[in-house]
Amino acid sequence: MEKKLSVGIIGVGRIGKVHTMSIMNHIPMVRVKGITDVNMNAANEWAEEAGIEKVYKDYKEMLADAEIDAVLICSATDTHMEIAIAAAEAGKHIFCEKPVDLSVEKVKKILESVEKAGVKFQVGFNRRFDHNFRKAKELIESGTIGDLHLLKITSRDPGLPHMEYLKVCGGIFMDMTIHDFDMAGFLTGSEAEEVYTAAACLIDPRVAELGDYDTLLVTIKFKNGAMCCIDNSREAAYGYDQRAEAFGSKGKVETGNDYPSTAQWSTGDGVFSEKPLYFFLERYMASFAEEMKQFMNAVIDDAKIPVTGEDFLRALRLGLAAQKSAKEGRPVKLSEIQ
Amino acid sequence: MEKKLSVGIIGVGRIGKVHTMSIMNHIPMVRVKGITDVNMNAANEWAEEAGIEKVYKDYKEMLADAEIDAVLICSATDTHMEIAIAAAEAGKHIFCEKPVDLSVEKVKKILESVEKAGVKFQVGFNRRFDHNFRKAKELIESGTIGDLHLLKITSRDPGLPHMEYLKVCGGIFMDMTIHDFDMAGFLTGSEAEEVYTAAACLIDPRVAELGDYDTLLVTIKFKNGAMCCIDNSREAAYGYDQRAEAFGSKGKVETGNDYPSTAQWSTGDGVFSEKPLYFFLERYMASFAEEMKQFMNAVIDDAKIPVTGEDFLRALRLGLAAQKSAKEGRPVKLSEIQ
Amino acid sequence: MEKKLSVGIIGVGRIGKVHTMSIMNHIPMVRVKGITDVNMNAANEWAEEAGIEKVYKDYKEMLADAEIDAVLICSATDTHMEIAIAAAEAGKHIFCEKPVDLSVEKVKKILESVEKAGVKFQVGFNRRFDHNFRKAKELIESGTIGDLHLLKITSRDPGLPHMEYLKVCGGIFMDMTIHDFDMAGFLTGSEAEEVYTAAACLIDPRVAELGDYDTLLVTIKFKNGAMCCIDNSREAAYGYDQRAEAFGSKGKVETGNDYPSTAQWSTGDGVFSEKPLYFFLERYMASFAEEMKQFMNAVIDDAKIPVTGEDFLRALRLGLAAQKSAKEGRPVKLSEIQ
Amino acid sequence: MEKKLSVGIIGVGRIGKVHTMSIMNHIPMVRVKGITDVNMNAANEWAEEAGIEKVYKDYKEMLADAEIDAVLICSATDTHMEIAIAAAEAGKHIFCEKPVDLSVEKVKKILESVEKAGVKFQVGFNRRFDHNFRKAKELIESGTIGDLHLLKITSRDPGLPHMEYLKVCGGIFMDMTIHDFDMAGFLTGSEAEEVYTAAACLIDPRVAELGDYDTLLVTIKFKNGAMCCIDNSREAAYGYDQRAEAFGSKGKVETGNDYPSTAQWSTGDGVFSEKPLYFFLERYMASFAEEMKQFMNAVIDDAKIPVTGEDFLRALRLGLAAQKSAKEGRPVKLSEIQ
Repeated sequence: MEKKLSVGIIGVGRIGKVHTMSIMNHIPMVRVKGITDVNMNAANEWAEEAGIEKVYKDYKEMLADAEIDAVLICSATDTHMEIAIAAAEAGKHIFCEKPVDLSVEKVKKILESVEKAGVKFQVGFNRRFDHNFRKAKELIESGTIGDLHLLKITSRDPGLPHMEYLKVCGGIFMDMTIHDFDMAGFLTGSEAEEVYTAAACLIDPRVAELGDYDTLLVTIKFKNGAMCCIDNSREAAYGYDQRAEAFGSKGKVETGNDYPSTAQWSTGDGVFSEKPLYFFLERYMASFAEEMKQFMNAVIDDAKIPVTGEDFLRALRLGLAAQKSAKEGRPVKLSEIQ
Repeated sequence: MEKKLSVGIIGVGRIGKVHTMSIMNHIPMVRVKGITDVNMNAANEWAEEAGIEKVYKDYKEMLADAEIDAVLICSATDTHMEIAIAAAEAGKHIFCEKPVDLSVEKVKKILESVEKAGVKFQVGFNRRFDHNFRKAKELIESGTIGDLHLLKITSRDPGLPHMEYLKVCGGIFMDMTIHDFDMAGFLTGSEAEEVYTAAACLIDPRVAELGDYDTLLVTIKFKNGAMCCIDNSREAAYGYDQRAEAFGSKGKVETGNDYPSTAQWSTGDGVFSEKPLYFFLERYMASFAEEMKQFMNAVIDDAKIPVTGEDFLRALRLGLAAQKSAKEGRPVKLSEIQ
Repeated sequence: MEKKLSVGIIGVGRIGKVHTMSIMNHIPMVRVKGITDVNMNAANEWAEEAGIEKVYKDYKEMLADAEIDAVLICSATDTHMEIAIAAAEAGKHIFCEKPVDLSVEKVKKILESVEKAGVKFQVGFNRRFDHNFRKAKELIESGTIGDLHLLKITSRDPGLPHMEYLKVCGGIFMDMTIHDFDMAGFLTGSEAEEVYTAAACLIDPRVAELGDYDTLLVTIKFKNGAMCCIDNSREAAYGYDQRAEAFGSKGKVETGNDYPSTAQWSTGDGVFSEKPLYFFLERYMASFAEEMKQFMNAVIDDAKIPVTGEDFLRALRLGLAAQKSAKEGRPVKLSEIQ
Repeated sequence: MEKKLSVGIIGVGRIGKVHTMSIMNHIPMVRVKGITDVNMNAANEWAEEAGIEKVYKDYKEMLADAEIDAVLICSATDTHMEIAIAAAEAGKHIFCEKPVDLSVEKVKKILESVEKAGVKFQVGFNRRFDHNFRKAKELIESGTIGDLHLLKITSRDPGLPHMEYLKVCGGIFMDMTIHDFDMAGFLTGSEAEEVYTAAACLIDPRVAELGDYDTLLVTIKFKNGAMCCIDNSREAAYGYDQRAEAFGSKGKVETGNDYPSTAQWSTGDGVFSEKPLYFFLERYMASFAEEMKQFMNAVIDDAKIPVTGEDFLRALRLGLAAQKSAKEGRPVKLSEIQ
């Protein structure tokens, strides 16, 4: 099949590999022309394993390749701004992993470059493409549940990450809740006005020593009147827990977890079933492929991008406000954030 | 069967009738000797219909009857204090409907009388006796889910009450959320420390004119570290919605609604099942009988009362704090409430 | 309340007591005037415990009481014919426990007496009044699932009864499957034409020594084209299992078991919930009350009886045919049964 | 990545394409070297679209290619014997779609050639690789439900196929139930002894004119004592319905359908969810990939094949016996089939 688009992938850690495979297995009209990584060994190994023709010595070489139409930025967060701006200036369309950056100002700079260059810029909020959340969105948009009054998002990870990771991840709000802030914006279709956070360290006191939290209850008031509650835990003993419930004037919709099988067994000891799919790679694999497809389609068709830089900015500002609320023990208005 | 206890019922509105039938049908060792009501016609009709031997002309006559061991106070809230204190002084055990009173001070006065008289005093927080919430409590107490980190309570009524009722009910916090505040205390087994309320009028603007709310998201921090979220709506289009989810260091427990049947049907249009049991009389009927049984048993065996006046006081203070939070737009510490 | 009907109960074993309490607790317009039992001590004790005014020395004395409008026959199966015929001749309406009799001829004799006397005669197939099966029936009758093609009934007891009971119960077809045969007739609304039984002793070889079976798969072809499969086991390790699935030209309906609670808990070991309600007294208690109500209403209003003697006859003949099929290893036509 | 195995695909209809993509997307160590089809245009188009290097002019040319290690036979059923024998004689490992052939004798001839050539031979009973049925199998094999007593398999297609297809498909037993016969053998781990079929035409009278059926209830007695019931319908209004329930001395396991999402919504009209995944391509796509992986692994590692020719023969003989039972209206022993 003739390829319509050539892409380069910058950073081949876990998520860079996921995107490589999504494109190679599920998007026949796109060619992964080459990759690059600060760790050249990793880049070479992955190119060999996945059968990718080219390894660029750095992202600049990739951007200089006229055949490359779009790049996926999957490198460390602190490299995003430099790469994204260079890519925009080189006229490449950009898919950028979340968080784009932890600074509102820097994100705005990126978006200005993107705007100026007239390239596409999509952010990796993959959960919007999950079959369950998409169905919830559909039911909300179709008016099935009427005007949205309450939104409840549950998002719990299966285990506390290593301390090394926790030190550099930007804190629970930027690393974990940012997805839920985006989901809240996506499902409500509205702008947040005020946020209140109840935060605690209930899993491991070392998290508190980092000035971070492991358990959250966040309340958001949206401009359209909807009120949202997000609960987060870094450690759900039974595995990854990703659910939402939207309640409105005409009804509600609830989405549950996905499971390895539908088997349910009953013995003298009770009724049993399997734990949810373990973590994000299991639960969200199909959503990663779907976000790639939609990005590539938007580029090929010069169409609207499904998750924009502005979407990220909204989630980021909510995160900063929620963090401020946790620190100061009071509700924080979004207008307090730059 | 020989009756071991004789009781009188004060007030034969809806809940007074429910308790009459619970005792007559399910508690053979207890005799409903008589009833009274400010509306004598209502009292006479109910005595006739239910086959109750005596109608007292007022609660004082009932309290003067030496055969009466215990009274159920099911009259209007503003009569509770006077009746309860008189009953305690007459040496009668007391089952008092919620809210005992809307004033902390008055509740304390009642509890002092009860204490002094050495009689039993149980409050009508019937949901503690519901099969679903009891199972959740059991699993929390047995340590199955470890230390409690998060508690989520959903409590939605099937329809906005009449404006006449809304005017006199004491507001959503005292009329509706009070049950959830008690449930939160019951399930966490801890004392609330701080509460934050996001409140809105999304169903009917006339509620706002009353200075009240119809939709709530309440966040409570408990002394044991657990954080709780209660969501309330006065109008769930699909009916009464009463659920809880408790999440802890070792797992979670979720309880769902009860349904008229387990039938599920599938056609070309989708998969269908019935709406939840309509309202509290349908959902909680068995819990009303169970609370009566446990009250009567506690009286007969001179044992511990399952829902005490102190439990009510805790819920009341939480309600007052939550209300204050809604008005002032900030988290309120329980220590701010008298 | 004025009682509109006076009934006598013949036989106060387990089911006689269940009916006593159903009437006393849930049917205020009916008075249980008296009881009788071959075991007079049992009768006296139960009268005392339940507060029943009269103990008749035998069923004849009861039938001679002009105040008695209707009798419930809850005595041993081999006494049913004599009592039922005498009751009919005495002009009493009759509720008769299942099995009415194990002989088609004897059942016919009873029905002739009933016919001649013009009294009501209802049979204790209580499952027709169960909330789940009634909803299935409703959906079938409303045409929701179209023409019925397939019916699957699961009916498993929680444990093998004592050998003493197995010796006298009439065999699995008469003791256990008879309920399912009635359910099949009830749900299909049609007459059986042919039946094939696969039968085995897989639980306890002593059952085989009695010439009986403990595990069955019965296939029935109905005149309206529907085909039905009933599976029975005397011992489901997880408890009483009572379900049905009806499949038709426009869809299907499935009914599940009832559970002590809706609680579902998840830990590192999996997802758990409670076992079904233990046995028929737990699962079908409400259906026993409902069958009493409908019987009493039919008597008071001189209306159609919901479960007739002909219904029993149909189930009995299916049972005899299924038993013959098991013995002879071939499909048996209903026309082969007298 | 270095390819360890080269395969050729004979027949590129729907299932041939599914296998092509499964290998190309999910099995990096296998190379689809070439394809062939009696329709050369179809072969060329698919080679172009999927990026396959070679199109053989016929299967003989493919078998003559020394680089080809294994072939997938996805052509019309009546060509299987000739191709399979030739492939075995050419020393190629064989994956053969079901039905291998409708004649026991011909299947035996194929298996003899395979045996003689010492090549691997796997049959396309893909449902064994489905996540739900595999979990059921696991729970049975681990002893969780004890000795198997009853097995119930539901298998209903979403709509009656075209009459043209029905004329050539070999009849419902060979086209549809054959999968369930294999599943029954797989889950019981035993040999069938006797089978009884209740069969009808309830969907379309034209099916009866073909001498075929559209609705079945099949009862199988297995040598290990287990009794199995299979129900089939050609047209389930709500979609593809693929479930199993295994009941044993210690409990049961049930598997349900898969759904497009977990969303459940509730409104004033009831509680709703989505219909099951539409048909076999949606429901079983992952199982097709898994069967390919296991076939390729068995070839590479010279290991045991997961679905053998003998497995097919067992299902075929059950199908012939079940068909005979339907025609003759009596239970048929497997020993009656050659």
